[in-house]
Amino acid sequence: MKIGILGTGVVGQTIAEKLSQLGHQVMMGTRDKQATLAKTGKDNFGRPPFSEWIKNNSKIQFGTYSESSAFGEFLVNATSGIGSIEALKSAGENNMANKILLDISNPLDFSKGMPPTLTVCNTDSLAEQIQRTFPKVKVVKSLNTLNAYLMVNPGLLPEPTNIFLNGNDADAKAEVKKLLMSFGWNENDIIDMGDISTARGTEQILPIWVRLWGTLQTPMFNFKIVVGGK
Amino acid sequence: MKIGILGTGVVGQTIAEKLSQLGHQVMMGTRDKQATLAKTGKDNFGRPPFSEWIKNNSKIQFGTYSESSAFGEFLVNATSGIGSIEALKSAGENNMANKILLDISNPLDFSKGMPPTLTVCNTDSLAEQIQRTFPKVKVVKSLNTLNAYLMVNPGLLPEPTNIFLNGNDADAKAEVKKLLMSFGWNENDIIDMGDISTARGTEQILPIWVRLWGTLQTPMFNFKIVVGGK
Repeated sequence: MKIGILGTGVVGQTIAEKLSQLGHQVMMGTRDKQATLAKTGKDNFGRPPFSEWIKNNSKIQFGTYSESSAFGEFLVNATSGIGSIEALKSAGENNMANKILLDISNPLDFSKGMPPTLTVCNTDSLAEQIQRTFPKVKVVKSLNTLNAYLMVNPGLLPEPTNIFLNGNDADAKAEVKKLLMSFGWNENDIIDMGDISTARGTEQILPIWVRLWGTLQTPMFNFKIVVGGK
Repeated sequence: MKIGILGTGVVGQTIAEKLSQLGHQVMMGTRDKQATLAKTGKDNFGRPPFSEWIKNNSKIQFGTYSESSAFGEFLVNATSGIGSIEALKSAGENNMANKILLDISNPLDFSKGMPPTLTVCNTDSLAEQIQRTFPKVKVVKSLNTLNAYLMVNPGLLPEPTNIFLNGNDADAKAEVKKLLMSFGWNENDIIDMGDISTARGTEQILPIWVRLWGTLQTPMFNFKIVVGGK
């Protein structure tokens, strides 16, 4: 499958590597190619600059948001939540029309320091904002509730954990589920929460996620929903 | 220990029964004793009216918010979150001064139907509002992230799960932890998240909790944090 990934940070890179390993054709998308290539030094996670990463992943193509979204039959939003709407506008709704957009973004605002706050919550969510702004796109929220390395390698944890699906289009959710299963997720561990408004719940997990990261001193954890008798 | 429980709903009743079984002296508190006793019919959870419950639990005393908070050496806020501040004002700060208040409430607003929204979130929390309004009280948030029956009987689930502590006073958190362990919680499964502001995270779990209740068709579930290598 041809897949366009919007966003060149750790989430975009990690998803791109996995999809490429699985045999998909991947094009990363960014706002300004030259600016992204000009970045030097390690990122916040100690990773090499993008220019080095893309050199080491020569099968992965690199373009603008618009080129990447036109290229992909399936799209991934791996941009920072605070910039997602603008990034997707730059990608262009026509390039995204009738395509599935796997939305991994989180509406985190780090501008006032740690811990981050949410730019939208409670009665709305970033996923809903994206779906409302781009009605022709089939938005499916998933994977936003855990660390990038775990997204593509759930077996790094000692037991199965859960991820969630939020979206209005059942077929689109089924497609995303298949892709997630190719990443190593068990079918039964992927919980379909319902329509896109259920993303309010999954996005509002982030505040406790961030605090648990501090408390546990590692981002390598995930939620498991343990269910008892009815 | 003498324990005052504010709130006569399912959470208050369930906690009261458990504490009474454990040998504590318990006084339930309500705004208006006559009004609470006058309720007839089953509640939303199919439970008998309070008047019947208190008759069947004759060791448990019954008073106003003020009487209950004066009685207890240790207090529990089991009121509806939307009415908690008013209920605690009615209890009276002097009656609560220097005491621990285990805050189980959630800031849920059901007035616009299901799913409920939060009356406070993101940059503040109900626990912080309570702590700010009653600075002499040692507020410890816990148990708000799961069903009442599981709060006092975690072994109903097929494997250990997690609960959280949020509060500014380390000694108060240690006291609450001891009480939770007497309910059947393992020490290692009680995660101290930090100061009272970390309650933003645990209160914002409620939106996904409510949706999972619908999806799983049972309220008998809880979150387990699965941690991997660093």
